[in-house]
Parts: sequence; C-alpha cells; structure tokens
Amino acid sequence: MADFIDNGTRFRLTDPTLAPAAAGYLWNRRMMIQMTCRGYAVSQYMDPEPRKYAHVPTIAGQTFMQPEHRYFAHHPGRFFYVRDNRSGALFSAPHEPVRARPDSFAFEPGLSDIRCTVEKDGLRVDLCLELPDDDVAEIWTATVTNVGETGRDVSFVPYFPAGYMSWMNMGGHFDPELGAVLCTSVTPYQAVEDYFRNQHLKDITFLAADRRPDHFEVSQQAFEGEGGLADPSALQAGGNLKGGDACYELPAGILQYDLSLPAGGSECIRLLFGPARDTSEVSELTGKYLRGDAEAVRRASRAYIADGLGSFEIESPDGAFDAFVNNWLPRQVYYHGDTNRLTTDPQTRNYLQDALGMVFIRPETTREVILRAASQQFVSGKVPDGILLRADATLKYINQVPHTDHAVWLVIATCAYLDETGDRSILAAPAGWADGAGSDSLYEHVSRALRFLAGEVDERGLPLIAQGDWNDPMNMVGYKGRGVSGWLAEASSYAMSLWADICEAEADHETAGWLKRASDAMVERINAHLWDGNWYARGITDDGAPFGVSSDPEGRIYLNAQSWAMLCGAADADRKARMLRAIDEQLETPWGVAMFAPAYTRMREDVGRLTQKWPGSAENGSVYNHAAAFYAAALYHVDEGDRAFRVLRAMLTEPDADDIAVRGQLPLYIPNYYRGAWHQHPRTAGRSSNLFNTGTASWFYRLVIEQLCGLRGTRDGIVIAPQIPSDWQRCRFRRTFRGATFKVDVERAEGLTDRMIDIDSRPLDGDVLRRVEPGRTYDVKVKIPGQTQQQAQRHGAA
Amino acid sequence: MADFIDNGTRFRLTDPTLAPAAAGYLWNRRMMIQMTCRGYAVSQYMDPEPRKYAHVPTIAGQTFMQPEHRYFAHHPGRFFYVRDNRSGALFSAPHEPVRARPDSFAFEPGLSDIRCTVEKDGLRVDLCLELPDDDVAEIWTATVTNVGETGRDVSFVPYFPAGYMSWMNMGGHFDPELGAVLCTSVTPYQAVEDYFRNQHLKDITFLAADRRPDHFEVSQQAFEGEGGLADPSALQAGGNLKGGDACYELPAGILQYDLSLPAGGSECIRLLFGPARDTSEVSELTGKYLRGDAEAVRRASRAYIADGLGSFEIESPDGAFDAFVNNWLPRQVYYHGDTNRLTTDPQTRNYLQDALGMVFIRPETTREVILRAASQQFVSGKVPDGILLRADATLKYINQVPHTDHAVWLVIATCAYLDETGDRSILAAPAGWADGAGSDSLYEHVSRALRFLAGEVDERGLPLIAQGDWNDPMNMVGYKGRGVSGWLAEASSYAMSLWADICEAEADHETAGWLKRASDAMVERINAHLWDGNWYARGITDDGAPFGVSSDPEGRIYLNAQSWAMLCGAADADRKARMLRAIDEQLETPWGVAMFAPAYTRMREDVGRLTQKWPGSAENGSVYNHAAAFYAAALYHVDEGDRAFRVLRAMLTEPDADDIAVRGQLPLYIPNYYRGAWHQHPRTAGRSSNLFNTGTASWFYRLVIEQLCGLRGTRDGIVIAPQIPSDWQRCRFRRTFRGATFKVDVERAEGLTDRMIDIDSRPLDGDVLRRVEPGRTYDVKVKIPGQTQQQAQRHGAA
Repeated sequence: MADFIDNGTRFRLTDPTLAPAAAGYLWNRRMMIQMTCRGYAVSQYMDPEPRKYAHVPTIAGQTFMQPEHRYFAHHPGRFFYVRDNRSGALFSAPHEPVRARPDSFAFEPGLSDIRCTVEKDGLRVDLCLELPDDDVAEIWTATVTNVGETGRDVSFVPYFPAGYMSWMNMGGHFDPELGAVLCTSVTPYQAVEDYFRNQHLKDITFLAADRRPDHFEVSQQAFEGEGGLADPSALQAGGNLKGGDACYELPAGILQYDLSLPAGGSECIRLLFGPARDTSEVSELTGKYLRGDAEAVRRASRAYIADGLGSFEIESPDGAFDAFVNNWLPRQVYYHGDTNRLTTDPQTRNYLQDALGMVFIRPETTREVILRAASQQFVSGKVPDGILLRADATLKYINQVPHTDHAVWLVIATCAYLDETGDRSILAAPAGWADGAGSDSLYEHVSRALRFLAGEVDERGLPLIAQGDWNDPMNMVGYKGRGVSGWLAEASSYAMSLWADICEAEADHETAGWLKRASDAMVERINAHLWDGNWYARGITDDGAPFGVSSDPEGRIYLNAQSWAMLCGAADADRKARMLRAIDEQLETPWGVAMFAPAYTRMREDVGRLTQKWPGSAENGSVYNHAAAFYAAALYHVDEGDRAFRVLRAMLTEPDADDIAVRGQLPLYIPNYYRGAWHQHPRTAGRSSNLFNTGTASWFYRLVIEQLCGLRGTRDGIVIAPQIPSDWQRCRFRRTFRGATFKVDVERAEGLTDRMIDIDSRPLDGDVLRRVEPGRTYDVKVKIPGQTQQQAQRHGAA
Repeated sequence: MADFIDNGTRFRLTDPTLAPAAAGYLWNRRMMIQMTCRGYAVSQYMDPEPRKYAHVPTIAGQTFMQPEHRYFAHHPGRFFYVRDNRSGALFSAPHEPVRARPDSFAFEPGLSDIRCTVEKDGLRVDLCLELPDDDVAEIWTATVTNVGETGRDVSFVPYFPAGYMSWMNMGGHFDPELGAVLCTSVTPYQAVEDYFRNQHLKDITFLAADRRPDHFEVSQQAFEGEGGLADPSALQAGGNLKGGDACYELPAGILQYDLSLPAGGSECIRLLFGPARDTSEVSELTGKYLRGDAEAVRRASRAYIADGLGSFEIESPDGAFDAFVNNWLPRQVYYHGDTNRLTTDPQTRNYLQDALGMVFIRPETTREVILRAASQQFVSGKVPDGILLRADATLKYINQVPHTDHAVWLVIATCAYLDETGDRSILAAPAGWADGAGSDSLYEHVSRALRFLAGEVDERGLPLIAQGDWNDPMNMVGYKGRGVSGWLAEASSYAMSLWADICEAEADHETAGWLKRASDAMVERINAHLWDGNWYARGITDDGAPFGVSSDPEGRIYLNAQSWAMLCGAADADRKARMLRAIDEQLETPWGVAMFAPAYTRMREDVGRLTQKWPGSAENGSVYNHAAAFYAAALYHVDEGDRAFRVLRAMLTEPDADDIAVRGQLPLYIPNYYRGAWHQHPRTAGRSSNLFNTGTASWFYRLVIEQLCGLRGTRDGIVIAPQIPSDWQRCRFRRTFRGATFKVDVERAEGLTDRMIDIDSRPLDGDVLRRVEPGRTYDVKVKIPGQTQQQAQRHGAA
C-alpha cells in the first residue's frame, strides 16, 4: 500500500484515503509546490517577496504554509475530470473533487517530479508534474489511456482554479492565440506609492496547453453550477463547456478535450500553469516549456536536483533509513540551503543552520552565508534577528522581536564549515558592519559576537533572554529585562568552547584563554542556578522563578536544557543518568521525544506565547524535530549512540500504511514537528505538521555523516569513529571529503574489544587520518566490537 | 416566486437557485449578519474593532464584506441536515450543503428576523434567526414537523462550522454543563504588547442548545469524512455522531437530535451561536437567550428596529416602492446611522452622510455626529479623513490617504439638520480642535472649514484634489500636487452657497457676502475651465489635461460632474439640456445611471487606481448608486421630477424573478453598486454588489421626503412642494416634523394650472407653512395639475 520504489528515489502510495494530506514537494530557486495525493496544492514563488498564483476562494491572509495545512473543497488544486461520453460516468484524478473510488491508484512523488496514476472502469490517467529549473511554472503531462477492450469516447477536463485573485480586479478569458486561459487581476493596494512598487508583479495566472481544447470555460461558477465541484453542472447530461469568460468572477482554467480512444489507445496533453506579468511572458514560457525540447527541460530540472544530492551514500540493514538518507534528506537540506526557505529575510538562526547542512553539498554556499550574516552584524558584536538577502528586503514579523541566541549559530556554522573544508582562509575574510564603516575579519566578527553575548547577562552572569532565544515564542520570560535563558547559558558555553579551540589553533591564546574561562564559568553558574535535582531548568523568569522544573505542573522538563547541558559539559555522569531517566519517563513518545512536557494548557505570563499554542503543537510540547536533533547530537557527544540513533530514526515516518496513517505524511521529509502531548491528547499524537521547513534536516544530515558514520573533519585530517546502532552488524558508506573519496565498510566482529581501522589494507594508528589527499579514494575497513562486547562495555560503564 | 408579504415588512423567495447570493441582513449595535437564502452567512461584530466568530477554512485576510461576496462550499454557514432514519434520505435546510431539490421552499427575511421554511418528502423545517437587541449572538429557532400521514424517525443535525480560527491554537469540545459546543482559539499575534491588548477578545465561538443533543461532533473533518459536506460520512449508513473533539483541527458545532415524529407532530430546538470571552459569558448568554423569556427578547429586538423605522409613510400607486420606502429604506438608513457601518474610524464623508439620513429618524444622533466631526477638525479648518469613535481607535487603510472633500459634507449635514429640526442652538455649540486648545462654536468650525477649502486651490482658483475627493481611488489626478477636481469645484460652490444662507440668517453679512462671492467666482471658473461643449469635465490632471471629456475614449463623461453643476447652478438651461442628452445617451442602463462611461479597461496613470478596477465594478463605471442619488438630487433641484424619480426607482430591485435573477439580490436594500459597463460586459451588467453599506440610503430617504413628497423644513416652517411622477394620479403620505404630524394627500386635478394647497381645509398662500405647532396634526390636501397640463407646461418650458 505504501513503499519506496526505484531504489528509494520515489515513493508509491496506493490509497488516496489513507492519509489525505500526504504530499510531495518540488521546488526550484524561484518557487515551490507541495502537492497532495488527492490533488490539492500549496505553491509559492518569489517576486521578490513570496506570492501565490493559485488562491483560495476568499481573501486570504498572505502567509507561507501553515502547520497541518487544512485542505477544503475549494482549496486550490490541479484536477482532471474524466467523463465517459456514452455512460456519462465521471471520475477525477488524482482523487478530488469527484472522490470516486478508483480501481487502482498510485501517487508517486519522485526527486524531481510527482507522478500519479489513476485507473477507473477501463480508463487510466497518468499525470506527471515537473518544474523548470529556473522559471516559475508547473509543467503537467497528462495521458489518458483506454486500457479496456472496446473503443471509448471520453471528455478529459483539466480544471485549475485560480481562486480569489483580487477585490480590485479579477477576471479571465481564453486567448486563442496563446492557446491559454488567462486569469487576470490587479494586486490590491491603496497608497499611490504601491502602484509604482507593484509594476513588476505577475498578475496573470495562466493555463496553457500544447493543443487546442475542444471546449473551454473560465468562470468557476458557470462550470460548477448547482452540481458543485463533485458533479459540475457543465459536465452533466453530456454537456460541453460553453466557452464563457469570468468578469469579476472567480476565474479558473478549464479545458475540455474530447477524445476517441480505441482499445489500448491513448492521448497525451501537456499543460503549463503559472504566473506571468503579461502575455509576452506567457508566450515565452509556453515556447520554452510546451513547444520546446521537453527532454532537455527535464534533464535540466533533474540536474538541478541531482546537484544537491550530496556527497554521501549509505547501505545499512535499514533500507527505509537508507532510502531517506541517500535521497530525500540531502534533497531537503539542499532545498533549505539553496532557497533560504523562499524568504527575503530569513531568521539568522535558520539562515546559518540551513547553511550548516550545505557544507556537505555546496560548501561555498555555507561560506557566503557566514560572511553575509557577519556583514550584517552590529559593531557592538550583536548579531541581528534576520538577514536581508536583497537590498529592498526588510525585517518582518518575528524578525522584529528581539531574540538573543543568534551569535551561537554563527559560531556553530563557522566551526562546521572549518571542520568540513579545512578552509581557514574564511577566518581572514573581511566583512563590514551594519552600523559602522570599514570591515574586519570573520575571526574578529565571531569573537566580537561572543564578547557581546558574554556581556548580555544578569547579575548572576546568566544570559538575558529578552523576548526569546532559539524558542521564538518564549517571549515573556525576560521581556521585563531580567529573565534569563538556561538553554542559552549552555549554548553560550558550548559555543565559547568551540570557538576557543579555533582561537587556540590560530595561536590567539589570549582570546582562547578568555573563552575557556568564560565557558567554564558559565558551566559553574549553570550548575549553581539551574540544576533542579534530576534535570536542568529551562531558565529563570523576570520574577526570579526557575521554570522547566519539577514543581511545574506544566512545562516541567524541557529537552533542550538537558541536551545542551550534555553538549557544554555541564552534566557529570550522575546528572546525565538522571536526565536521561527523566527524559525517558516524561518526554518519550512513540513518535519521538517531545521538546517538553506536559504541554501547557493555559497561558503562563512569565513564559509567554508558546504556552498559548495548542497543547502538543509546535513550540507547545510537540515532538519538535529540531530540538530532537539537538538531543541526538548531545547523545552522540556523550557516546550514547544507540539512544541517539533511536531519536533520529523516530523522526522518519515508516514507509508503511499504519505509520503513514497516524503521522499523515509520507517518509519524504522530516517535518518541523509531530504532535506531542501524547498523554494529554493521545488521539492526535504523532500527527505531522507536514511542513518541510525545519533546521532539523541539516543537523540530521550532519549527525548521520559525522556521528553515526563517524567521519568528521578536523583541522588537518579526518576522524573515523562510527557509532552505528548495536543491532547493526554491518554498514557501508561512501563519502567525499576535501576532494577525496572514502569508501567505508563497518562491521562488527565478535571477540573484539576495541575498534580497528584499516585504510587501504593498512592499519590506522588511532582514529584520525591526517593529510587527506584530494582526488584519492580511500578504502576504509572498520571492525568494531560485536553486540555482546558492546553491551558488556555499556554495563561496565554504567 | 418572489414578492413582498406581510404588508411589505417581509419578503418571500421560493426558489433557492434563482439568485444564490440573495440575502437578508440583521444587526444590532454590536454586530451584523448577512444571511443568504442557501444558508451561507457573513457576520461581524465589534470588539472594539470588527471581528468574525465564524471563519473561512483557511487564514483569511481581515476584511469587512467584499462586493459580490463569493460563497463557496466551505464558506461559513448555518446548516441543518435532516435524515430520515428509515430510508437514510438526507436533505438540508436552508439549501446548502446537500442541495436536494425541496418540495417547497420559502426564504423570508423580515425587518427583525430571517425565516426559512423547507419541505421535503413530508418533513418541514422552519428556521428563524433573531438577534438580541444588545448582545453578540444569533438566536436560532428550528422546528421540524412531520407533515405526512405516518410516523417518522428523523435525525436533525444543526451544523455550524467555526472555520480556521487561529494558527496558534484552535480546537473544540462539547461542554456538558453548558450544553454547548465550545470552539476555542487564541487570536494569533507575535509582539508581546499584543498579548495585553488581546486580553478582552472573545476567542470562543459557541453553539449552545436549549436541549441536550442525543449525539454531537466537534471535528469538521470527522463529521464530513470522505462523504464530504453534501453527504457527510458521519451520517451515512445510519451512523450517529461519535462525540469527538477537535484538537488543533477545524472545529464546528454539530449536534444530533433523534426525533420520533408522529403524523402532524413537531419538535422545536432553540440554538444560540456566537462569540464569548469565557465560559461564564457563554453561561450568561444562554441564560438570557435560551432559558430566559424568549418573547421579551423578541420584543426588545423588534423595538430596537422599530425605533429606527422613521417618521414617514407613503401610499402611492407603486406598491413595491412603498414597501421599500416605508420599511426597508429607513431600516437601512438607521443601520448606517446607528452602527456607523461597524467601524471605529468611519470616513468623514460617510459618517456625515449617514448622519444626514438620521435627521428623519433620530436627529439628536445627527447633532452628535456633526459636533464630534467638528471636534476632530484641525485649527487650520481642515476636516480630517476619518473620525475616531473611540479613544483607542486609529485612522486606518483609506483614511491614511489624503482626500479633499470632507468639508463639503460637514456643511451639507449641518444644513440638513437645521432644515429638519430648526435647532439653531447647534450653531453656538462649542467644539474643540484636534491640534489646538480651547473650543469654538460649530458656526466657526464650519465657516473655517470653508475658508480652508477655499484656500486649497490652484492658480486658476480650482480646488486641488490631492489623492482623491468623493471618489476615493481617483488618487492620481493630483498626487503631484497640481491636479484639480471639477466635481469638488462644484461641490464647494454648492456648499458655500448653502452656508451663505445660514450666515445670512445668522446676520453675519460679512461671511455670507464672502461666501456668495466665492461661490459665484467658483461657478465662473467652472464654466471657464471645465465646460467641454456638451458636458462638464470631471477635473484637470497634474499635467493640465482635462479628463472626463469628449476626447477621452474611456471615462468620457462622469455623472457627478453634471449633477453638481446643476446643484451649484453652473449650468444654464442650454447646458443642462446638453448634459441631460449626453447622460441619456452615454450613461443610462436598464439598471440605473452609470457613474461614468465607458469604463476604463486599462490604467490611466493621471487618473488613478479606479481605472484599474474591473470595468463596470465599483468606482470604475458601475451604476454607483451614491452618484445616482446625487444625480436625482440635482434633477429635483432643477425641477426634473420625472427623471429624478426614474433614477431613484432604478436603484430598487423589482420584486420579481427576472430582476432578482439579473441583479442577484432581493429588494431589501440599495446596494452600493450594480455592475455598469453595460455595452462592454452585457452579461454581467446589473449585477448587485450585495453590499448594503452606502451613502445612497440617506440621500434616497431625504429625496423621497423632501423632494418627491416635497415636505422640507425651512428656518421657521415647512415647504410643501410635492414633485410626484407624472404618471401618479394620487399619493398619500404621513410625516412627522418638529413634533407635528402632516397627513398629506396629493392628487392630480385635470384643468388645474397651478398647485393648490389646503391645510385643515383652509387654503395656504404660497407653499410655506410657518410656525409649525408641535403636537398638532395637519391635514394637508394638495391638488396638482393633471398629466395633460403638466406635459403642456413641460413643453412650454423646454
């Protein structure tokens, strides 16, 4: 009913009712589309700010995608009606709006296209959606095949609603010269300056076809009539579309093709759907994508995606894991890193973490991101809340609320870049300042960011949280100017110690020394003020109350405060054991580790907005995968590889019907959250947000490569230290690193007590290979202790 | 199929497919609801800004109602499913979502309730919607009757979707103590200050019932399932609602009542639907409206509406006209005047014109409005773009764009108030200034407004238009600082001459003299610069180009520029005749007079945003009724009573199926526009916006009372000068005026050459009755020349 196919590069779902919101997504640098198995879609493009070209049927708030996006009868979709002209029987592909039970169904999202096949009463519809590599448009190929044994007369009716385009001006008509329906509009505005600002907007949504339809309609209402979406009046009683237009009415591209199909016969129609500024742009796009070389377009699109599929491949006993990690994970990392989540002002935190994953795909992008972020830093050392990607961009929404954590990510991204590339020249690269003349080296930028961070502390020396840290809506812990973030104390300490190593390596002993002392002092403060007996508090409010502590009935234990205590070294073995026990008891769910529990059910005015979110959703105690990834990082950091893998693995939807039904998504991306509040709302726990924008992807990829497989760069070489799960007997992977290729075969050997590494059949002394030679392929064999030994070791250690 | 019933106080529509958006509206001081004949609704309440409690299923832009509001499958509605539990047959009342063809149907909006009766297969559903007089809630009474001859088992399922309430937090559950579904949410926000600002918001939408349902459901998705709205899975195969909740899912109030109905038997259920801040408010509201004295609630609601039905009644040969003018017109005037269109910052123009109609209903409101507007005037004399009704209100949207006409309406409203009430004390009433200390008399305020207006002129002495006059989106004629408004020149001249009369009467000869000279000088300039040969230009652009002139291929002739040329006396007889001919030829449509023609089909950058609207919609050449009302006023002003009446009459939808189908509305209100562009888009011409917010209502009411019936106040008495249409033989009306009652009988008498007036059987010398005695009833008989004479006179005059 549901599984990976084509060596993991495609998925097949054979039931459109199992998980109605199950979707695949495609993108290029200018646009993205998330397409459900039933035919609904959310699409967005940059112009330069995010815009839509297919709208809901009412005036919509301009938003990106919302978690657990609600599709409804008139939600924008790409629908294909099929009518048997003898019997009048109607069905639609993919599934909406007719919802007729298909004889067979396959929804097959791939890496660079989304396919769907629906068969009903001897007729098969094959759909394929592709994107150009660098234009905004959807390329649809629809094939109708008579799989029966007698001839059939069929009307095939693609139906692409454009929705409520504008209260000022919207309409539509068929343009015979272009062979396209043009849905026209004027983006609403009031101030005269916006008229000039809007000049470039693509206010046309067009549906063009490679062959002239037999009939068409442009008015959605005229098409649907009293019959409604599921049984449109225009298609009842053998009727044909009437060639109408839309005059300040909801427009839609509706084309009717009357096909005579002999047994086995089929007809193919190609469609192009998207926005355009004027008819000449429509003409240009149809020329390229309907009348041009389709194979070349496909190759370019595939090449664009293939470019981002990374430098790593694994073969483990866990086929679903391999399929995800070898294809869909780097794809998700690449999507983030190459598009910046389709915004012009990414949050600094997101921008830098998305770049972190790009070190494995296109490290020069990471370098650019780091330097751009540094160049928007303030002379004081403060890192801004968002990074402007264009001269005309502005900081919007959440980027207008002061958050205090951004310096941390500048350090982590820079260290990751150095680890992977060894490119120390970045440290000397100059970057300007947002509010000052001249420029300074990145090294100075990062160091100054940490000095600023070290200064923004309360009288105890703990970092002020202002209106949020990593946790955006934790906005009332410190809004009065006194509250502190326990997590940020840990993250600061961690970042300081990471940077101290860089300083040391750069022979800047003074800064290194200061950073080490500051990092250690912070650890002392953490242990003095934030340890609650069995875990660490998440912070201390404006009024001096620690929260995320055992006396809290809600929000009692926060995952991040524990993960980063391990990362920064605050937790000794005893505390670590207590923390892990508490996490197991209070935060584990069948769908991953919740970011805290219990979820808040009422506003806590000294914690903030997150406590008002629906319990178990998003930042209110969901299985927030980004936090879970930090936890996995911490677990690897403290040699808890089995636990770490379990945490990572739980983020992936299983390719089977039961898990897909519960999570409501396909295993093609890690969503930003699964519902938590397992004990409070068991019915909905595990449900996916179906949002594929998340910092999780980068961290997950990095942990797989650097921790699970254990190949991570050092200043002058590479560490080889796999931490594969104890129930894996063997695992092979390939990874490129600084121009070299490592083929690694990890195998358990019973009787072994220590890891043994051979490189090109010669034993390696220790676990670091120095002086990696570009162009060379290293054949690495790692033997690790068998399960029995490992368990014995573990028991010894505990 | 469609007609007034109950002496014009109610309408009956017997086909739900004739005009799907046909609707009635109810309101009280806190809320309004527009309810269609099929069950969809738009409702809004003040808190203090306008808010909704039933939402569309996606994140909606916060808007008031949009013209030609598009209803769609999941648009919010109030639906009642009826299932026969033996056959499983399903229908719904009013009509959506099942859309089963009813055996009989009646949608019956009344003055203070909306009723609907649907009968199908021996079952009848009677629905009645009422509002409290001063709370935000809908009171529904639903009665199911077995009109057949055998017993029936029926499930009756009210279904009230709450829609997408919030991306932060939304859900719902049944509260057994309250006997209500509570759909809960948190209004989304990001800045911490908004948390405090939002404290009072009513984030609960509840559906309470006066009896416990047998089953319920709160998740819309669980209810609909694969069956969808028209055939919900939860009601298929005899199933019962499962008692589910909504956990960050779309919530809905869905109650199931299993009724055993003997032949002739019926059951009644009362429901309350609306927003609440907390459960105690739900409890309070259900106590008042479900468990309290329903008759008392109904009386209060009726009394509220009855209070606004005015002081005028007519009996003419035109029954539909009478039904509208005696009931629905004052109701619409009252809605505007008592609610200020449910905004906290009405445009000054709207605020003052809505108050203008209130002089006939509650003149003390007009007095308050005038003084409030004056108190927000600037010391310079400038009248602001919007009036703030609360201390915490702000000028928003269009009120942030500078318009230049507001002084005109201050004069007109004040004069109308003085005419009707004779209350000269208002002139001495003090009002403060927005930007200065102290206060001055209203007299000084109005005079200074005119001095300011007189100063804002170009080198020719014509008024600068800035970014718009009465016509909001005419925003680019003068945005560079040079363009002028021809209409405003006329309106200024008219306002100056009106105010000159007041000044004269107040013995302020100096100001009166200046105003008369200024008014006359403006007329000269109008004739010098704006006469185009057959009509007046609408203005002159920043670049010196007159527009609204014969050489313009689009926007060639504007109605307002002609109407106000007549009002201000600029047009002599010859020009008037040319103008009327041009209007007849170019602006007349079967559904009224267009505000200009041809509609613009492309942007004119020296005219502005209106040229970008859909051709024939709103300010782009629709039959914009407000402009048509000015035209009617002008026609009465120049003794063109027959034409004037035709213009007024065309604004009213006929109570017959053909006109209702074309206009798509019921004759219960004047909409702000009917589509124009009759020659350009004949298919859609005549279609109503279905927006009942319009300054038209006040003007229409005033013209009927003061011009058609001809009873208008003077400083010390009342003029009696009816201008009834020449095809009316007789007409009677009753009007209260300054505490007295006038019963007037107007009759044509053949052979008569001059009007003759008897009051209480004594002939009146002239047409002015001085010294009206409060409390007295005047019996007035007016004899006017018969049709033959009148036509002869007209020919003589032409």
